[in-house]
Amino acid sequence: MLNLIPKAMADDAAQRVMQRCDRLASISETEGELTRVYLSDEHFQANRQVQQWMEAAGMSVWQDEVGNICGRYEAATSRAPAILLGSHLDSVRNAGRYDGPLGVLTAIEVVSALHSQNIRLANAIEIVGFADEEGTRFGITLLGSKGLTGQWPNDWLDKTDSQSISVREAMLAQNLDPLKVQHAARHPDSIAAYLELHIEQGPCLETADLPLGVVTAINGAHRLNCQFTGLAGHAGTVPMTQRQDALAAAAEWMVAIEKETTEAGGGLVATVGQISCSPGAVNVISGEVALSLDIRGPEDAPLSNLLQQLLSRAEKIAAARGITFYAEEFYHIAATTCDTRLREACTQAVSAVQGCAPQLSSGAGHDAIAIASQWPVAMIFVRCEKGISHHPAEAVTVQDVAAGIQAFTRAVQLTATPQREYETDDISQAV
Amino acid sequence: MLNLIPKAMADDAAQRVMQRCDRLASISETEGELTRVYLSDEHFQANRQVQQWMEAAGMSVWQDEVGNICGRYEAATSRAPAILLGSHLDSVRNAGRYDGPLGVLTAIEVVSALHSQNIRLANAIEIVGFADEEGTRFGITLLGSKGLTGQWPNDWLDKTDSQSISVREAMLAQNLDPLKVQHAARHPDSIAAYLELHIEQGPCLETADLPLGVVTAINGAHRLNCQFTGLAGHAGTVPMTQRQDALAAAAEWMVAIEKETTEAGGGLVATVGQISCSPGAVNVISGEVALSLDIRGPEDAPLSNLLQQLLSRAEKIAAARGITFYAEEFYHIAATTCDTRLREACTQAVSAVQGCAPQLSSGAGHDAIAIASQWPVAMIFVRCEKGISHHPAEAVTVQDVAAGIQAFTRAVQLTATPQREYETDDISQAV
Repeated sequence: MLNLIPKAMADDAAQRVMQRCDRLASISETEGELTRVYLSDEHFQANRQVQQWMEAAGMSVWQDEVGNICGRYEAATSRAPAILLGSHLDSVRNAGRYDGPLGVLTAIEVVSALHSQNIRLANAIEIVGFADEEGTRFGITLLGSKGLTGQWPNDWLDKTDSQSISVREAMLAQNLDPLKVQHAARHPDSIAAYLELHIEQGPCLETADLPLGVVTAINGAHRLNCQFTGLAGHAGTVPMTQRQDALAAAAEWMVAIEKETTEAGGGLVATVGQISCSPGAVNVISGEVALSLDIRGPEDAPLSNLLQQLLSRAEKIAAARGITFYAEEFYHIAATTCDTRLREACTQAVSAVQGCAPQLSSGAGHDAIAIASQWPVAMIFVRCEKGISHHPAEAVTVQDVAAGIQAFTRAVQLTATPQREYETDDISQAV
Repeated sequence: MLNLIPKAMADDAAQRVMQRCDRLASISETEGELTRVYLSDEHFQANRQVQQWMEAAGMSVWQDEVGNICGRYEAATSRAPAILLGSHLDSVRNAGRYDGPLGVLTAIEVVSALHSQNIRLANAIEIVGFADEEGTRFGITLLGSKGLTGQWPNDWLDKTDSQSISVREAMLAQNLDPLKVQHAARHPDSIAAYLELHIEQGPCLETADLPLGVVTAINGAHRLNCQFTGLAGHAGTVPMTQRQDALAAAAEWMVAIEKETTEAGGGLVATVGQISCSPGAVNVISGEVALSLDIRGPEDAPLSNLLQQLLSRAEKIAAARGITFYAEEFYHIAATTCDTRLREACTQAVSAVQGCAPQLSSGAGHDAIAIASQWPVAMIFVRCEKGISHHPAEAVTVQDVAAGIQAFTRAVQLTATPQREYETDDISQAV
């Protein structure tokens, strides 16, 4: 069994990571807030900053054709397939400072720790700071990771932001060549595995009172727009038993959604996050209610089964009330299962740090979703305060980050075969 | 027992009422819709039209100081207290054509039927077309009837419409003297009783398959703004059992409102007609939900009890979920009980027409609420199609209106003592 990197070293590294998260948070288009979107000036300012830190950790660095910042720390032998570590450097609007950057900056500390100990592994280590995961600017997500996998659809260059600037135009303005997007795609053989450290963005680790967890899967998700259509009426004159109240139907369904999803277990979650009723007057019974349904789970079949069960429930509720129900799915993503071998490496690493390794699914999406289409992936989660994310109040402790760096480093070592330093000038750019 | 007015006479009168409802509906500020608000040009145009019809029915007519159009058909003796018949001539925006005008126009037919048969009663008959019941323009209601009862608050002249025009300014623009508003108040002894015919604005008579019903009470009402405050969270990452979902709490409460109000019976109704959730994103658990509660019933004590029960239920639901509930009442009106003797007269009259007289409470407000503070009131309801009101689709049948005119005439006769015509030139304005 390998030793963990020393606690003191991990603590120093964690302090540095916290400072660097603060530094990156200051690179924002909005004063006093953090907003950093794809192809903005701040995007490339952050890339240049991360490049310096990668280089200081002993890596060769380049920016790829979609704007990802990439670094490579050579293996014991040159041109060995890389273990890819990464996360994203873009943000939502008025974001927290750890969602994304924490994964990139801890990865740099993994390399730095190995480099300072003159350790080279059987695999190279590459780090990527993805240029866009959130999709804040153009309404399309995972642009960075889908650049690496060569999965950019043909129409993405034509997508526009709120100012009607297309991806193509924004690339040209930042000296990226839109015709070379496909050059960002990495050869399948050049990468052996993908590991990502990320804040949990949920409350499970806090509840478990543990700094770290291992991700079993990234939840699949369905999103639907739903509608109950009854009959508007006078709130004073229509007896309770003669109503076709669309909002009463929606309420009954929302209660069923919560109850049946909770009963289903299996990490399934369902949320109604939007609702509006029409005509929407205090003294008028609702004739129409529009509401959203977001339903997620770590395995596709149980997720699909629950969705069908809930839709069937809505139909029954509507029928019993003499009203109609309509639902339309506008978004679906399959569940991403983490690779068994990589997950086992993460489990061993996390256990070595904190004595146990809680297994949990990720309710949020991550770059690993795109990467999983080409390479095996696994993820380590770091506890965040109250599970709050996508908000300035997003917070992690330096102790938890230190634990994360220890586990992350160990997981990388377990994924590769450790070797002593390999002297070489051939720190070439990976192909 | 008095005879009803002949069916043929009632049918002719009903035809005339339908035509006159159409004529009044054409007096609108909006092309192709019916909108007629207080102190508008259309208000006074409608008054002049109604004045002609009142005069043709044998009445002396005047406009009072708040803009009500008033007519008097003398009793067998002059200066006898009047049985006041009335309803309102104003409308909501994009209104139906029977809500209000039907009561004024059928009242004119009552007088016309008596006049054509040379019948004078022990009481005079007065008819009032109230200038404002709906409160569409200034956000204050029952302006016409509260003019008669002398209940205009001091600040009403300063109330403004959406164009910032005050009631005072609007009065002056229409040659009404704001200083004389209190002159519209009638001496308590000048009126003996108030009878109003109105469309039901609900579905009960249609369900009962009967044209007419007798009103037991006008429902009291409470309106509240309510709020559940939980904790917003990521729809994918917060497990079902760890949520403080404000919308899930609101849904549970809405289901309880419907169930407990239905179980309470007694003509009680409760409605949530407005709801909004925050932050209101498909993938975010609601941290805050604002919703309205409108609750009504024919008797104050059971209404108040149910309201307390529902608010207590909300507190329990919130407490069980670790969230907070807040409610603030912004409107309350006590129930108005119809006068026993007048109601009995209406019951006899309706029974004489259709063999029975269903008793029902009014869920909607009416001018009778204000009038009841000074004089005994009763109401007859006429079936309207599907209970639809405050909508262009508002509809009544000419047969039902004929039945209404027969019953209304009889109710007036039963309220007074019938006498043969009293010859007089003293058709003076009532004081």
